[in-house]
Amino acid sequence: MALSSSPTVSCKVVLASAIAKALLVEVTADLQKLHRIPRLHGYLANKDPAARMYADWTAKTTREHGFEFTLHEVDREDLEDQVRVANTDGDVDGIIVYYPVFDTRRDQTIQWTVSMFKDVEGLSPQLISNMYQNIRYLDSPNNTQKSILPCTPLAIIKILEYLHMYNPILDYGRRLHGRRITVINRSEVVGRPLAALLANDGAEVYSVDVTGVQEFSRGSGLTKQKHEVREMEGWGLEQCLSISDVVISGVPGDKYKVPTHLIREGAVCINFSSEKNFTPDVKERASIYVPAIGKVTIVILLRNLLRLASNRPENDILP
Amino acid sequence: MALSSSPTVSCKVVLASAIAKALLVEVTADLQKLHRIPRLHGYLANKDPAARMYADWTAKTTREHGFEFTLHEVDREDLEDQVRVANTDGDVDGIIVYYPVFDTRRDQTIQWTVSMFKDVEGLSPQLISNMYQNIRYLDSPNNTQKSILPCTPLAIIKILEYLHMYNPILDYGRRLHGRRITVINRSEVVGRPLAALLANDGAEVYSVDVTGVQEFSRGSGLTKQKHEVREMEGWGLEQCLSISDVVISGVPGDKYKVPTHLIREGAVCINFSSEKNFTPDVKERASIYVPAIGKVTIVILLRNLLRLASNRPENDILP
Repeated sequence: MALSSSPTVSCKVVLASAIAKALLVEVTADLQKLHRIPRLHGYLANKDPAARMYADWTAKTTREHGFEFTLHEVDREDLEDQVRVANTDGDVDGIIVYYPVFDTRRDQTIQWTVSMFKDVEGLSPQLISNMYQNIRYLDSPNNTQKSILPCTPLAIIKILEYLHMYNPILDYGRRLHGRRITVINRSEVVGRPLAALLANDGAEVYSVDVTGVQEFSRGSGLTKQKHEVREMEGWGLEQCLSISDVVISGVPGDKYKVPTHLIREGAVCINFSSEKNFTPDVKERASIYVPAIGKVTIVILLRNLLRLASNRPENDILP
Repeated sequence: MALSSSPTVSCKVVLASAIAKALLVEVTADLQKLHRIPRLHGYLANKDPAARMYADWTAKTTREHGFEFTLHEVDREDLEDQVRVANTDGDVDGIIVYYPVFDTRRDQTIQWTVSMFKDVEGLSPQLISNMYQNIRYLDSPNNTQKSILPCTPLAIIKILEYLHMYNPILDYGRRLHGRRITVINRSEVVGRPLAALLANDGAEVYSVDVTGVQEFSRGSGLTKQKHEVREMEGWGLEQCLSISDVVISGVPGDKYKVPTHLIREGAVCINFSSEKNFTPDVKERASIYVPAIGKVTIVILLRNLLRLASNRPENDILP
């Protein structure tokens, strides 16, 4: 038995810190080209210690990498007004609100109040709609201002690029053609937008949650301009995992584990849950394993902030 | 019906000339580092016009790219002696014999006569054995002299590298981990060595010929140092193609066609037959299609010649 649990297992464990470092090189280079310091304004309107920690962490990371950060601690009843002020304030490049605020559907109204031109998190209705429709620019037909994508899904895409899952031989926008990807989690914040983004880039995506499996795909030969969704009746993890090159899982809590024996030999496995969705034996099956992604997500926040700052027309007249 | 044959099909057709050009840049750079001109000697001992054409073609290509080529037209009864002379002649870096000579098993004896240190085609028994055993150097344990691989299988590997099928994130020698590849043709000259090379690099390979399907694989987690072969009872093209990311076909003659409807959406398809093994509709199914490989194979011949010249210990004392 000892012999069968081999000591020479081939799996490459890739840490988020390594990927974040590579992305930061790009962000830093682009920041220098801007010739000014992008300013992020954060809004904290609750007593949640997790939100406070996230705010402190944003402050540290932005400043460390040459961005400016201002934290506003406000009464939650004043928040919408404050956001409206920031929307038109020329000194503000990006806005981030620390949720939950009311922890009801009212929070969505606040999300919708943030101007799409200052939304570093990519949660504005117009940005979300662009993403699902595979519209990649804000200023069609000029196509100079790239749309902003939500941080966590974009972080996962950047991780897949780093892992060479995107094939640069293929045309931009089709570089996942031929890839089969299972995404376990279909939340509105990460799982569903991620499945849509991957399918828009050419992959066949199996989106899995407790209600079942949906396929997101642009169809044979990628003849459709954007993905379509269909229910996969009778499908479960077994069907999805046996044909997937890539498995991405983000189920909250520490109960859920992806069944390793169903994963294809040599698959690429990425965990975006704050807990570990894969058991340690995943390394005996996967070719590449990414155990966490948080450090990449924060770099994407900086990248989005930089893009918002670059998109501002005033840049044309600044020195 | 006209609408279903879509005008916006996504398939990228990659020509051998483009890949050959990229490889030539490397070969030319390496040639300059050698500080002398490698000399290839060709032996033509038959009246076959195809062999004569291949000899003329070798002459043209070697000279065009800064190598020296000498053609010896000899009586076939004298050939073995001539090859033995070349084996020990310090002025000869590489030897190529234009087959068939006797067109019997006697040709194999000639093949075995060529010194493994001068065999540009990589057909010497020791080189072939190294390849199947996944031994990559001639001078273990120093590992400074890389073994020579047969031209056509190596050309296909270089094509797969060019197409980004090898993942540079993974360790050298395991970069095909997670890839499933069908090779249609199991000849001793190309199909079987190719299947072995791909499996040694980490792929799960389905080797198909009229007698059935064999799997070449290093096993789960690539725990075996070299591939093992097993018969896949009851398997046919249908089973292989439905799970293969890459389909490589080299069936001689113009009768054989790979059934397009069995190929996986988004697969990479490579033809190494002198005839077309894929029908035109493969472009509606594949993400990448390489219709021919001949121009890459000739560059590999130059690359092997250069490697043989570099491996010679005399290089240490040459200017």
